[in-house]
Amino acid sequence: MVTIGPSLMCADLGRLIENIHQLDSAEVDFYHFDIMDGNFVPNITLGPDLIRSLRPYSNKPFDAHLMVEEPERFIDPIAKAGANMISVHAESKVHLERALQQIRSHGLKAGVALNPSTPLCELDYIMDSLDYVCLMTVNPGFAGQKFIPRTLRKIKDLKAKFEQEGLDISIEVDGNISNAIIPEVIKNGADMLVCGTSSIFIPKEPLEYSVAQVKQLINQR
Amino acid sequence: MVTIGPSLMCADLGRLIENIHQLDSAEVDFYHFDIMDGNFVPNITLGPDLIRSLRPYSNKPFDAHLMVEEPERFIDPIAKAGANMISVHAESKVHLERALQQIRSHGLKAGVALNPSTPLCELDYIMDSLDYVCLMTVNPGFAGQKFIPRTLRKIKDLKAKFEQEGLDISIEVDGNISNAIIPEVIKNGADMLVCGTSSIFIPKEPLEYSVAQVKQLINQR
Amino acid sequence: MVTIGPSLMCADLGRLIENIHQLDSAEVDFYHFDIMDGNFVPNITLGPDLIRSLRPYSNKPFDAHLMVEEPERFIDPIAKAGANMISVHAESKVHLERALQQIRSHGLKAGVALNPSTPLCELDYIMDSLDYVCLMTVNPGFAGQKFIPRTLRKIKDLKAKFEQEGLDISIEVDGNISNAIIPEVIKNGADMLVCGTSSIFIPKEPLEYSVAQVKQLINQR
Amino acid sequence: MVTIGPSLMCADLGRLIENIHQLDSAEVDFYHFDIMDGNFVPNITLGPDLIRSLRPYSNKPFDAHLMVEEPERFIDPIAKAGANMISVHAESKVHLERALQQIRSHGLKAGVALNPSTPLCELDYIMDSLDYVCLMTVNPGFAGQKFIPRTLRKIKDLKAKFEQEGLDISIEVDGNISNAIIPEVIKNGADMLVCGTSSIFIPKEPLEYSVAQVKQLINQR
Amino acid sequence: MVTIGPSLMCADLGRLIENIHQLDSAEVDFYHFDIMDGNFVPNITLGPDLIRSLRPYSNKPFDAHLMVEEPERFIDPIAKAGANMISVHAESKVHLERALQQIRSHGLKAGVALNPSTPLCELDYIMDSLDYVCLMTVNPGFAGQKFIPRTLRKIKDLKAKFEQEGLDISIEVDGNISNAIIPEVIKNGADMLVCGTSSIFIPKEPLEYSVAQVKQLINQR
Amino acid sequence: MVTIGPSLMCADLGRLIENIHQLDSAEVDFYHFDIMDGNFVPNITLGPDLIRSLRPYSNKPFDAHLMVEEPERFIDPIAKAGANMISVHAESKVHLERALQQIRSHGLKAGVALNPSTPLCELDYIMDSLDYVCLMTVNPGFAGQKFIPRTLRKIKDLKAKFEQEGLDISIEVDGNISNAIIPEVIKNGADMLVCGTSSIFIPKEPLEYSVAQVKQLINQR
Repeated sequence: MVTIGPSLMCADLGRLIENIHQLDSAEVDFYHFDIMDGNFVPNITLGPDLIRSLRPYSNKPFDAHLMVEEPERFIDPIAKAGANMISVHAESKVHLERALQQIRSHGLKAGVALNPSTPLCELDYIMDSLDYVCLMTVNPGFAGQKFIPRTLRKIKDLKAKFEQEGLDISIEVDGNISNAIIPEVIKNGADMLVCGTSSIFIPKEPLEYSVAQVKQLINQR
Repeated sequence: MVTIGPSLMCADLGRLIENIHQLDSAEVDFYHFDIMDGNFVPNITLGPDLIRSLRPYSNKPFDAHLMVEEPERFIDPIAKAGANMISVHAESKVHLERALQQIRSHGLKAGVALNPSTPLCELDYIMDSLDYVCLMTVNPGFAGQKFIPRTLRKIKDLKAKFEQEGLDISIEVDGNISNAIIPEVIKNGADMLVCGTSSIFIPKEPLEYSVAQVKQLINQR
Repeated sequence: MVTIGPSLMCADLGRLIENIHQLDSAEVDFYHFDIMDGNFVPNITLGPDLIRSLRPYSNKPFDAHLMVEEPERFIDPIAKAGANMISVHAESKVHLERALQQIRSHGLKAGVALNPSTPLCELDYIMDSLDYVCLMTVNPGFAGQKFIPRTLRKIKDLKAKFEQEGLDISIEVDGNISNAIIPEVIKNGADMLVCGTSSIFIPKEPLEYSVAQVKQLINQR
Repeated sequence: MVTIGPSLMCADLGRLIENIHQLDSAEVDFYHFDIMDGNFVPNITLGPDLIRSLRPYSNKPFDAHLMVEEPERFIDPIAKAGANMISVHAESKVHLERALQQIRSHGLKAGVALNPSTPLCELDYIMDSLDYVCLMTVNPGFAGQKFIPRTLRKIKDLKAKFEQEGLDISIEVDGNISNAIIPEVIKNGADMLVCGTSSIFIPKEPLEYSVAQVKQLINQR
Repeated sequence: MVTIGPSLMCADLGRLIENIHQLDSAEVDFYHFDIMDGNFVPNITLGPDLIRSLRPYSNKPFDAHLMVEEPERFIDPIAKAGANMISVHAESKVHLERALQQIRSHGLKAGVALNPSTPLCELDYIMDSLDYVCLMTVNPGFAGQKFIPRTLRKIKDLKAKFEQEGLDISIEVDGNISNAIIPEVIKNGADMLVCGTSSIFIPKEPLEYSVAQVKQLINQR
Repeated sequence: MVTIGPSLMCADLGRLIENIHQLDSAEVDFYHFDIMDGNFVPNITLGPDLIRSLRPYSNKPFDAHLMVEEPERFIDPIAKAGANMISVHAESKVHLERALQQIRSHGLKAGVALNPSTPLCELDYIMDSLDYVCLMTVNPGFAGQKFIPRTLRKIKDLKAKFEQEGLDISIEVDGNISNAIIPEVIKNGADMLVCGTSSIFIPKEPLEYSVAQVKQLINQR
């Protein structure tokens, strides 16, 4: 099953609860929170306080994507704020296996996020500690960038790698996941779509309508 | 004249536009944005995107308080997002005079923020480049901390320093500025009050009412 | 031949010379020193001074495991303090090949240590400069953690890699190497066992007895 | 009253419990632990594990001197390991007032350590949160360096500063505090002496004898 | 075709224009500039100002090799100073794919440089964004080091990798590329030779003569 | 006596020896080398190799201004390259008194450089270890910036401070020291002038002529 997770950094930041109500009605599957520290990536976005504020307004899983250096420092506050899934970047300053154990110790799903250029061998010895991989399909830091074509092959390679090991680990794709590319990423093996300004948050388009479009693309396969 | 600036990190993060409408009606003087990078301070809060999102909803000055390392990197995006005043921390990795010039080159007011423990001599040779000083009255990073009593003396010392030089530089105070302490900080020389969970954002108290209380305290002097 | 190296950070830190006498009598093969900087790992343990202090009390090789950022800075003092083998982490900020050359320039054995999550391809182009690899079987930083099962496969993969290249490079395993796991790690290819609180330093058990137990496990193969 | 604290990094690191028994008999007043991270200072020495190991062997106060970056990370483990006093460096990356509060929250005495070149104004606004100041009289990092003469004036200036404020804060001096200089530093206002290789840990001199010498110097005043 | 690029950090730094005239006459193919920051590598050499100063004196391509942390900060100034090719290190703190895009956005050729120990899988998912790879054959930082033999195999492996993908990406080799080793590196697949103190800048040997020697070696194949 | 030191980063970088010959003929007093690491300041310029290259061509003192983090790492190579004076920045990550001792241990003059915003109290306890202070009159990093007026007062305050202590320590000024400002800085107490693009290196003006102009300004007093 392919799931849809709106990236809340692309929502209307002044009316987040309202947006969440609309997205809940449209039956999205999870919410994606981009946490940036201005150090691992060149932008600062949101933190645990925002997650805590929104937690009461939806029962869907909250997926926190830590684009930060030394993510171990933020796992506990993010977990307490109400996240259900947390991913950390393999390229950050991190003890990767320890971070995954720390996430799971809160009863949450643990993910690893990989920048477009990062090789898949980074995952070779942590597959047992992993619930999902977040493959970046743009360079992280800003909304509105161009999809990097070679990441299609990366999705396929990762899917093959998991199948070879007989593992059922989700592949999340994040970055310019437009309606045009959705069929491609699904065909290659992605099953969690982070949706931003190129599919769900379209100026003047109602969120319900946008989500319905994405759902149709998923079901058409 | 003493001015009031609600700290938006203490507002209802899911309904910021609604909060701004209420605060505008209550005639606050400016909005204070706490930008944290998880590196200079142990928390991550909000960034340029949030400022840009809220900019259309108020004509009041936006005051961005950069609690970040190497703040020079964020001055341009924050200015473009719509800030009218930007302060940087003297304790961060920064070329302080250069940062102030960079802020002013956008036509904005330039401030220096000082942690509770930082001595005032840090300001000795930048007074010409300075529009306001933000004196932290708690350690920065989180809402809900205790006011540090010795900062009262620091406000007084800073006021004296400015008067001795014949300079008209604003003194902003930030951190647990409760109704109880407001008369004290004003008496000592503060003229910009950053108001958070101990004066304006009181659970179940309407924002209009809370702001009116603070205004009364100011006028009573 | 499989060798045994007690990790001295697990010894009685107030009676190290006494412990070394006992361990020497029990015929351990080398001593392992965990040098942590509170930056590469979240703990600080011991440094060159301790190695220098203990050097006169044993003729066994001293194996210094540098869990530090920029290990090049510490290779010379550690070598002068009396180490015979030094390993540096591939994940630290380091010019890896340079560090190995620097270690060998002192006439010492040069090793690379790998965190549990680090892929083996890190070794592809340094095998000529390498005397041993230290495979972490827990995340480094603290005693008393749980052995990570997938590292068994990593030992096996590394052994295969070396055999394919016709290289005779030692495989050291470090982290919760208990009596229960020792037969497994040896079967998979490990030949240097770092022994801590789960095999040699057992409360109330004489060191001589504990070492004998480990030796028996090794010889039983 | 002037107190004496042997610096345990200068003791016989292989026989620390034995050294502590001798020093306890000689009636020293406290034990000084130099915790170095190889980052704030160019050496690595000892950490919380060593303090915990020695805690059962003396009832004297343990004074932990954190020569580390971001000392907030180590205050909790050092407190739990059994320290009674903790000092942090003003020059490190630290929120100084927060660190002092964190130390006191464990019921411990809180100190600030200052490098030889650091001006005293760093203390202007934290005097209320301070139990002692550790004035470095050599540059921190290594034993056996030369006393810096100008620090005598700094001790005097600090003493004057405290007297002017009517505060009773201890002045600890650390670095080449030899028998020759002890009368001088006491005269200038120091009341806690960290004693190392130039007064207490003299090769071939019994610790009891060395301590007695220092005590005599103190009492002679 | 194999091309020759003198490394200007090995030239006579007091007479660079004169050296460039001689090298231009000798028909070298490009100029290599080693930009070091004292952080990624333990030396500081030259920056954008030097490139800008020399730009008017030759029409040959200028190849800037960024041995710096966070190279994204220097791409724009180096491009404006007149570089035609820029390579960044995969081991630095960098978003690698973003950096390559940034270089190409200036219309320049984009390269990735790899330290001797770095595995080739780092290139797996950036081959579409890549014009050349700079394989370090010594550890970067200083002139006059020894060629690392295992890098010959790395050149061969990289050539094979590119051929397998049907890609035409240049392989530049950098570090002690002496006349003795030139035939070897070319045979293994290198087609851009960075030439320093072991081939072109030989004390008392005219530059024209040295370059001619290298050219002969290339043509002899 | 007031001395003149051309800043070689402003010279013709392609003809440095030629420039030095001209400046030597014009009887400048010393040469100033700006060493930038792209970390302490946002630019990279030159390093020890350049100093070594130029050393044989003049007998005048070479003054190396380290605008770098952790300057202790560069003092030895810069001293060996031929510098006679080295200054380090108080704002960098440095043990300031140790760095000054390290410079003097090579028999060189030791200086401290201060950014425009840095207070003079930084010098309170290092005056005994100091031969000169380099007061930045622009923010360091680039040539061609505007002189900061308040630094005139800083020069005066520093001169007063030294006179009060009866110390004969040179005051060097660095940054846009134009012919227009030279009389002012001298009047306030500066006695070493770092001269760049606003006094000596004027496009189309012969160096001899420019230096003569500066000399005249100095003698006119």
